[in-house]
Amino acid sequence: MNDLAAPDLEHRLLAEDHTSLRLWLRLLTTTIRLEDTVRQRLREGFGITLPRFDLMAQLEREPDGLTMGELSRRMMVTGGNITTIVDQLEKENMVQRVVSPSDRRSYSVRMTAQGRAAFETMAKAHEQWVIGLMSTLSEDQQLQLHTLLGLLKQGLLQDPPPPRGLT
Amino acid sequence: MNDLAAPDLEHRLLAEDHTSLRLWLRLLTTTIRLEDTVRQRLREGFGITLPRFDLMAQLEREPDGLTMGELSRRMMVTGGNITTIVDQLEKENMVQRVVSPSDRRSYSVRMTAQGRAAFETMAKAHEQWVIGLMSTLSEDQQLQLHTLLGLLKQGLLQDPPPPRGLT
Repeated sequence: MNDLAAPDLEHRLLAEDHTSLRLWLRLLTTTIRLEDTVRQRLREGFGITLPRFDLMAQLEREPDGLTMGELSRRMMVTGGNITTIVDQLEKENMVQRVVSPSDRRSYSVRMTAQGRAAFETMAKAHEQWVIGLMSTLSEDQQLQLHTLLGLLKQGLLQDPPPPRGLT
Repeated sequence: MNDLAAPDLEHRLLAEDHTSLRLWLRLLTTTIRLEDTVRQRLREGFGITLPRFDLMAQLEREPDGLTMGELSRRMMVTGGNITTIVDQLEKENMVQRVVSPSDRRSYSVRMTAQGRAAFETMAKAHEQWVIGLMSTLSEDQQLQLHTLLGLLKQGLLQDPPPPRGLT
């Protein structure tokens, strides 16, 4: 019932299953494959985990840093997980916590100069990997896919789920 | 730079970022939102985790059961994680381990009658949720999206990554 070669989560489908269920399992398996490849290359190439890379990506264009709440929303994971990632990155001198001048009980997280330099190298490689992995699709097909996913996501945003944990 | 309302992983994009990177972050955020919603509803409605549901879904149409290796491939996770999920489902009498008649050192995992009954109820609800979550898109748009993702996945399958852990 799976018209692609790999026995994966799509394997359970039968011909009579609903289009939406087929689409969901294809969306899931495609994303998992892409994410696993990126995760593996980041680990092998730079010894960094995907959540740490993602967090640095959010900080790159925020010279004033971001609060933990903002980081949690953008990363789509719960605050406890963000704390763990920030702790690890701070130990490696990639980010630093900065106490808010207006509210001394709260703080922001900023990229350090060292973090910025390291991220720049990783981000260039990451972009090239993503371009390569998507290259089966033409530019037009990629734009079409982007638009369709945007419609789907817009619908989902009207009923937002809570942030998920990383585990 | 993000034309949708939510501040999430897409937020880091700039107008000059490559189409492939924009597409990748949209694919990822859409999948995470869908997965989180399904995960939450399974937990609230049936007290079951998503990996346990996914494993039962793979067993549903396999009266002879599946080996741990086959389960691991289909679930797209490593064997250690599969063992944990099977242990939990076995404790709840949803699945059982069956020793292979031809090789007594290996075994298969099968759904129990109780597991089959429980899964049937959950699968019906799950399918309705997925249909509802996808309903922003017309049938035609869903088929178009399915085809485009199939092209992308086909390209990825030519360079398969190793199975990922659940953590």
